[in-house]
Amino acid sequence: MRYSQLFPKTIKQAPAGAESVNHQLLVRAGFIDQLMAGSWTLLPLGFRVISKINDIIRGELNSTEAQEMLMPLLHPRDIWDQTGRWSDPDVKEIMYQFKDIRGKELGLSFTHEEIVMNLLGKYVRSYKDLPIKIYHFSTKFRNEPRAKSGILRGREFLMKDLYSAHVSKEDLQQYFQQVREAYLKIFNRMKLETRVVDASGGVFTEGFTQEFQVISPVGEDSILVCESCDFATNIEVSQVKEGEKCPRCGGKIKMVKAIEVGHIFTLGTKYSKNMGVFFLDEHGKKQDLWFGSYGIGVSRLVGVLVEKFHDEKGIVWPEAVAPFKVHLVGLDLDNKEVMERAEKVYKQLQAEGVEVLFDDKEGVSAGEKFADADLIGIPYRVVVSKRTEEQLEVKKRNEKTTAFVTVEELLKQLSH
Amino acid sequence: MRYSQLFPKTIKQAPAGAESVNHQLLVRAGFIDQLMAGSWTLLPLGFRVISKINDIIRGELNSTEAQEMLMPLLHPRDIWDQTGRWSDPDVKEIMYQFKDIRGKELGLSFTHEEIVMNLLGKYVRSYKDLPIKIYHFSTKFRNEPRAKSGILRGREFLMKDLYSAHVSKEDLQQYFQQVREAYLKIFNRMKLETRVVDASGGVFTEGFTQEFQVISPVGEDSILVCESCDFATNIEVSQVKEGEKCPRCGGKIKMVKAIEVGHIFTLGTKYSKNMGVFFLDEHGKKQDLWFGSYGIGVSRLVGVLVEKFHDEKGIVWPEAVAPFKVHLVGLDLDNKEVMERAEKVYKQLQAEGVEVLFDDKEGVSAGEKFADADLIGIPYRVVVSKRTEEQLEVKKRNEKTTAFVTVEELLKQLSH
Repeated sequence: MRYSQLFPKTIKQAPAGAESVNHQLLVRAGFIDQLMAGSWTLLPLGFRVISKINDIIRGELNSTEAQEMLMPLLHPRDIWDQTGRWSDPDVKEIMYQFKDIRGKELGLSFTHEEIVMNLLGKYVRSYKDLPIKIYHFSTKFRNEPRAKSGILRGREFLMKDLYSAHVSKEDLQQYFQQVREAYLKIFNRMKLETRVVDASGGVFTEGFTQEFQVISPVGEDSILVCESCDFATNIEVSQVKEGEKCPRCGGKIKMVKAIEVGHIFTLGTKYSKNMGVFFLDEHGKKQDLWFGSYGIGVSRLVGVLVEKFHDEKGIVWPEAVAPFKVHLVGLDLDNKEVMERAEKVYKQLQAEGVEVLFDDKEGVSAGEKFADADLIGIPYRVVVSKRTEEQLEVKKRNEKTTAFVTVEELLKQLSH
Repeated sequence: MRYSQLFPKTIKQAPAGAESVNHQLLVRAGFIDQLMAGSWTLLPLGFRVISKINDIIRGELNSTEAQEMLMPLLHPRDIWDQTGRWSDPDVKEIMYQFKDIRGKELGLSFTHEEIVMNLLGKYVRSYKDLPIKIYHFSTKFRNEPRAKSGILRGREFLMKDLYSAHVSKEDLQQYFQQVREAYLKIFNRMKLETRVVDASGGVFTEGFTQEFQVISPVGEDSILVCESCDFATNIEVSQVKEGEKCPRCGGKIKMVKAIEVGHIFTLGTKYSKNMGVFFLDEHGKKQDLWFGSYGIGVSRLVGVLVEKFHDEKGIVWPEAVAPFKVHLVGLDLDNKEVMERAEKVYKQLQAEGVEVLFDDKEGVSAGEKFADADLIGIPYRVVVSKRTEEQLEVKKRNEKTTAFVTVEELLKQLSH
């Protein structure tokens, strides 16, 4: 992609009222744009990051034999009435509910348990049809009073939600553990250190749930963590208090702020019972389905990544989720020979499958181009200029040193 | 993918009230499931088809230097008020509009012209920032009174919409032609023959628009076409009538039913003027932006493809959009040696990057497995059974003859 064509360009000033680092940097660097409070357009750079995050999630979930699909966002009231959640005051507070012009009551999805159970009811007959593991990436809506903190808490946002149905509690628990491991791999691949925290199920369940929390001063959750081991617990369900001893290792418990990036639920047989969905076991006897759901806040992750990976100059994307791998900066481009060299490098890298953002703008100073590169945060900055001659000046975004290498040497470095 | 794990399996009976072929076959074969009138879940098989369609569209649009992004679905009234469309009776009839609990008026998107123009207003300053070509794949909502014909006309559906902004009418027209060519390539790659029809812009514009129509008896549009050349026109704007002579070649004009799969609009400067968005030209003078929008009905295309490509036994997917390339049917699988051979072929094909659906179910008759394969419509049916020995029995879905080949020969055939 040529920077001259990229929509939009970086902007110098953070928007008024942007308090959080992710809001300031993502807007200034041209990744997101605010439509209204809690509602964001993912601009081309932001969309590239989301696509990489989704591909990582997709890969790990497919490894658990989950299948991708796509469910509708507008839901009829009658299905939500079957669990009583339509009228639950906690749900009414966050779910957009309205009537269409024919008076039919509709709600905008903030989750899909009822819709999945309704779907299972149409297709599941026997124990032979189970387990079922299905997921989708989709837009969620929350009539959120506190829409702030940039892209961390939105009224409209992207989530991956996975649902599983099983013949037994044991089978559900086994898959729950498998998803837990998949989630840890997912966050690990994007270099996010998470704490797995026993938590409350909120409007979803009274059963066992775990949150994946990233420790961050801008987090809205408070969790208790052990300073010595990886023990962590949500204050709502915790048996220990700050300053007490860790029940696992005896270390000291402290309270920290954190951002929830994933939440996994064992929902038991509640949804199955309430919605009259069952299967026939080996003896032809009706049995309830054991149900679980598993979410990852995809657009929130973009904000979390920026909160964790930035410096005073801008974003520092982990390679696995960076919008491009190389930011090719052309300097002295009014010189025809230099422009030809830069174009050649651009095409060589692309031909080798390297994702390159090529700053091909003429008449812009080196300082301004470097500032843009630091702000956007692509892992490798590669300079072609008069003084680089037949070589390239390479600097990693998270390092201070530059090195002069040939295209071949750069390609070798990138392939590691 | 193992058929034993695929959710859901085929069903024998078409749902009650399913009149159209696409509705019957897509539901029976397990591609889609109806949540409510006009609202469909894309099941794993259907999602695979949509993903292939999207990739084809993405590839051709990226070739026009358009950039992918993602815009929100819930829109604030004030932006739609700037063009007056919020209160347009034709818009109010189809747009879901409601108030949130704080009384703020919101609408669910059926298109994004206002939102794009609002976005451009924040970033476009000079002629140097133009042209801009941006698109997204997203959910659209229409409070549609006639939600019927399967997935052809929905209340919630997937669309690709592209928007472009230019410095001049000529530049807009040139890009309009480029998109027209890209659309023809897109439909051609999925083997859909389309007629490009001059049309009315409806609630979008009084300017020049063209529809891409697929001739089909289940279509809801009526178009006039020439029997001798590719001349076609929408009855709303036509200067000729049925039975008259074609203005281009003198051939005979007839009326046919057709389904609109794409629509491209030159919107002129109306949106720019109404919303106060402009750019500065070379002389520093304010100028209106020339604007265009270009849509493809992605989920509708799935239905259109089935209407065009089916026989009495089921769907016959064109290869480019088929959910899998090979339907590997294992017979006599209670025989351990045959099962091992089938497993080996499954793994060999996957290792070569071939997308395979492997019917690994035991105790199901050949007749039932073949009926499933014909219903689902994957291009190559490959049988492993006692009698195939070290070979494979291959039959293309759209041919009647079978052939015995080795795995190597099959791989060679598939790579063509």
